[in-house]
Amino acid sequence: MTVTTKKIELYDTTLRDGTQGEHINLSVQDKLLIAQKLDEFGMDYIEGGWPSSNPKDEEFFIKARQLSFKHARLTAFGSTARFVKSVESDPNLLGLLHSETPVITIFGKTWQAHSEKSLGISDEENAELIYRSVAFLKQQGREVFFDAEHFFDGYKNNPEFALKMLLSAVEGGASRIVLCDTNGGSLPHEVTDIVSRVLAVTGVPVGIHSHNDGDLAVANSIASVMAGATHIQGTINGIGERCGNANLISIIPNVMLKLQRSFTFVEHLTQLTSLSKFVYEILNMPSNTRAPFVGKSAFAHKGGIHVSAVMKESSLYEHINPTQVGNRQRVLVSELAGQSNIRYKAHELGITLPEKSELFKNIVHHIKELEHEGYQFDGAEASFELLLHKEIGNFKPFFEVLETKVHIESSKNAKNVDQAVLKVRVGEEIEHIAADGDGPVNALDKALRKALIHFYPEIKSIKLVDYKVRVLEEKRGTSAKVRVLIESSNGRFTWGTVGVSTNIIEASLHALEDSMNYHLFTLKASAPAAKQVPQG
Amino acid sequence: MTVTTKKIELYDTTLRDGTQGEHINLSVQDKLLIAQKLDEFGMDYIEGGWPSSNPKDEEFFIKARQLSFKHARLTAFGSTARFVKSVESDPNLLGLLHSETPVITIFGKTWQAHSEKSLGISDEENAELIYRSVAFLKQQGREVFFDAEHFFDGYKNNPEFALKMLLSAVEGGASRIVLCDTNGGSLPHEVTDIVSRVLAVTGVPVGIHSHNDGDLAVANSIASVMAGATHIQGTINGIGERCGNANLISIIPNVMLKLQRSFTFVEHLTQLTSLSKFVYEILNMPSNTRAPFVGKSAFAHKGGIHVSAVMKESSLYEHINPTQVGNRQRVLVSELAGQSNIRYKAHELGITLPEKSELFKNIVHHIKELEHEGYQFDGAEASFELLLHKEIGNFKPFFEVLETKVHIESSKNAKNVDQAVLKVRVGEEIEHIAADGDGPVNALDKALRKALIHFYPEIKSIKLVDYKVRVLEEKRGTSAKVRVLIESSNGRFTWGTVGVSTNIIEASLHALEDSMNYHLFTLKASAPAAKQVPQG
Repeated sequence: MTVTTKKIELYDTTLRDGTQGEHINLSVQDKLLIAQKLDEFGMDYIEGGWPSSNPKDEEFFIKARQLSFKHARLTAFGSTARFVKSVESDPNLLGLLHSETPVITIFGKTWQAHSEKSLGISDEENAELIYRSVAFLKQQGREVFFDAEHFFDGYKNNPEFALKMLLSAVEGGASRIVLCDTNGGSLPHEVTDIVSRVLAVTGVPVGIHSHNDGDLAVANSIASVMAGATHIQGTINGIGERCGNANLISIIPNVMLKLQRSFTFVEHLTQLTSLSKFVYEILNMPSNTRAPFVGKSAFAHKGGIHVSAVMKESSLYEHINPTQVGNRQRVLVSELAGQSNIRYKAHELGITLPEKSELFKNIVHHIKELEHEGYQFDGAEASFELLLHKEIGNFKPFFEVLETKVHIESSKNAKNVDQAVLKVRVGEEIEHIAADGDGPVNALDKALRKALIHFYPEIKSIKLVDYKVRVLEEKRGTSAKVRVLIESSNGRFTWGTVGVSTNIIEASLHALEDSMNYHLFTLKASAPAAKQVPQG
Repeated sequence: MTVTTKKIELYDTTLRDGTQGEHINLSVQDKLLIAQKLDEFGMDYIEGGWPSSNPKDEEFFIKARQLSFKHARLTAFGSTARFVKSVESDPNLLGLLHSETPVITIFGKTWQAHSEKSLGISDEENAELIYRSVAFLKQQGREVFFDAEHFFDGYKNNPEFALKMLLSAVEGGASRIVLCDTNGGSLPHEVTDIVSRVLAVTGVPVGIHSHNDGDLAVANSIASVMAGATHIQGTINGIGERCGNANLISIIPNVMLKLQRSFTFVEHLTQLTSLSKFVYEILNMPSNTRAPFVGKSAFAHKGGIHVSAVMKESSLYEHINPTQVGNRQRVLVSELAGQSNIRYKAHELGITLPEKSELFKNIVHHIKELEHEGYQFDGAEASFELLLHKEIGNFKPFFEVLETKVHIESSKNAKNVDQAVLKVRVGEEIEHIAADGDGPVNALDKALRKALIHFYPEIKSIKLVDYKVRVLEEKRGTSAKVRVLIESSNGRFTWGTVGVSTNIIEASLHALEDSMNYHLFTLKASAPAAKQVPQG
């Protein structure tokens, strides 16, 4: 086993290989947001997409030119040229150059059966294809990484062929050789062995790209580092095709805290949990509560027997200190946990709750009731803050919706109608107002604004930046409850609100009402609230 | 590394350690059902619970006496006695004996800090406690397994102490020494090393019990087997406290298919996928689509580039043959898919598409257009099948919705109204019908059924089993498009359909229409469609 203490590079492919996962869909805007966040976290390389494969990725690379990274380098992904004779005019390579990234990652076949059966070319032709593709991109002034597709299977099958292809890439000028366990079935001891052999013959830094088909992608990445690899590819939360890619969220703390190795740029891990959550949010996927390191349950202690002991000396019961990765310890003693959580959260928001009084008990009781109904305040802290202020008598709603009517009509012969009619009380006055919209929720949003703008011109600046619907109790079909989460912005801050109902229109209205109220409330309040999140 | 070819024992603790997971709740009846299924699959040992810790587990052991296992042996779990002086009257040990299982597993402290700080006893007292607890149970005619709690951390901290405790258990008569990575933070190379050292000094078979806090529980289990361990503890689907226990569903095929080692009893793996699903069902948890080996996505191929190749030679693209574990290959039609994906999918559905004609080009074009609008056929294969049949002229809708009106009213002073009015044409007849519901989508669903039941009584059997909403272009706020996915069932089969619109009501209607049409179409079609999925 090679002993080295070189720093490890992080190469993120959430935006490319991650999007190959089933039900994973990212818009160009989503991808830009994630890229920005990955840079802030400290990734060394961010693979943005495969420019020749679809127009969305092409658009991404154009827009990405506006991003200013503090450290990361953007990379574009693609295959080697198709024909040896036309490397310089290969559309895939030209597409890669056109993406204007400083680094280009190309993959080539290193399993002989693939070269023979799927490309239908001789070993020499494949070696030449790899060599010339790398060399051409290099001549155009780009740094080139070589992804050795199916390397581990290829090596097991025919090591001479596999190594020959790697050496062609090195000869062409590749500055990283990345060994891919494309089908995801390798075992850690095989990875250790093969990475060591590759390091013995190539002169460039070696990386690993693993998939989780054997539930071993994290272990394989660690095994490769222990064998001397210094570059790790993976995705946030392990998203990716089939069973996913190697999960960087698990790899990063293992490498830093367990192997005690350092990364080029990541210095502290406290943003790890929030990075994981951020990506789940953008993907509109529920986060994995059981996820190692960052999951909500990762440091949750249940077994009644040791809870008091856990509190006495955490290090005897936790493999790391949860705050190192931005997570926290939770003690699942229902009653007590509820109260202390609420108090903790209130404190964070700068709200003083009454001590041990009947009032405090009522607050806890009310919140539990709401949670039981399906409310969740994770992404809706503004609703939670309003609720607390209401309970302690600080806040009274600025308006009251007395009546809601929504009318939808569509027919083969006429224009669609999406109309909302609201009766809203503001102080002593009652506004009775209607609006058309693009869908019923939009009509409702417009009507509410129309009713209020007169009294509160400051709501004009509120924009809805996100709207999410989650069906609770999915098995109840169309009569299930839904939870609507809305994120609003006034151009400087964003805040989240929530509504729950079996009627999606009503759930949306509740979230909209909270959003407007929250904006008005924080404007009136002398001190701005603590939990507003600066935009960007 | 010890080289051995001994058979490996499987010890399942889903019913005990698995139930420590957050949100995991199993009734006594649930536990009995799972125990039966585990035996059928071929587990060697099934840990049923901790009798002294709660009345539910005590009840389980009483009822479990009625179970007749074909192979498995039931075990009860508990701690060593509390005081050396009263081992024979220790309530925990008596509770274990009372459970009447042939095997008893007791855990003891093997990390000195735990012995000292949490038990508050000397090293000698702890060794004596272990020795006498094991010996007492053994004298009562039971086989005793010793779970060495916190062994890996304990060994790293004080190997003499840790080994001494193991030897006390062996001396007492324990027939298995199980090394527990209780806090779940060990790395595979540490496990390899420590298991080898333990095997060198103890004369009894050694087992592993790992937790997934470092995302390495499967790898650690495999590492221990490679070092000579012959007994693996874990849970189905990796359920358990915090990040879960080692997932037997991943370990079993790795050991059999990758390490090529055999288990005492499991001979074939084809029931693995159904075992995993069964436990998720009983737990009332959605199954993990990305789960290695058994997940719905585990052998799903998306990237358009290699689908034609996958069809040619699966072994080049799949680490194992999915049928070995009772799973199957799937090809996903997605935005990245090309013509070959669509053709493959059609083939799978038993639909012959025209060769290279204008018509085929139109079909591809139409599907791409729909995907661009936000359609996605991943979870909506029935919509995709109808679409193809429509394009090639096989299918005409059984009805047409001419007019839709939805009316929603809520006010402070009156009962809420959620009403849908539909004008539906069936053949020459037009039904004009209204229904109230629980929310607008439910009202629509009811109205559509009312309009059709008259003509097609067979729709009566359709039940909606799942309803999902995803907001596309979230940044457009309330005017964003939504995609609705519906899963329907007729009691024997389930099928998925999709609808997209800026109006959630309309999107839901489209998905509902497809669902009804699909059911009627497949009933009329002479041959049942290929993609129906048997329930259960």
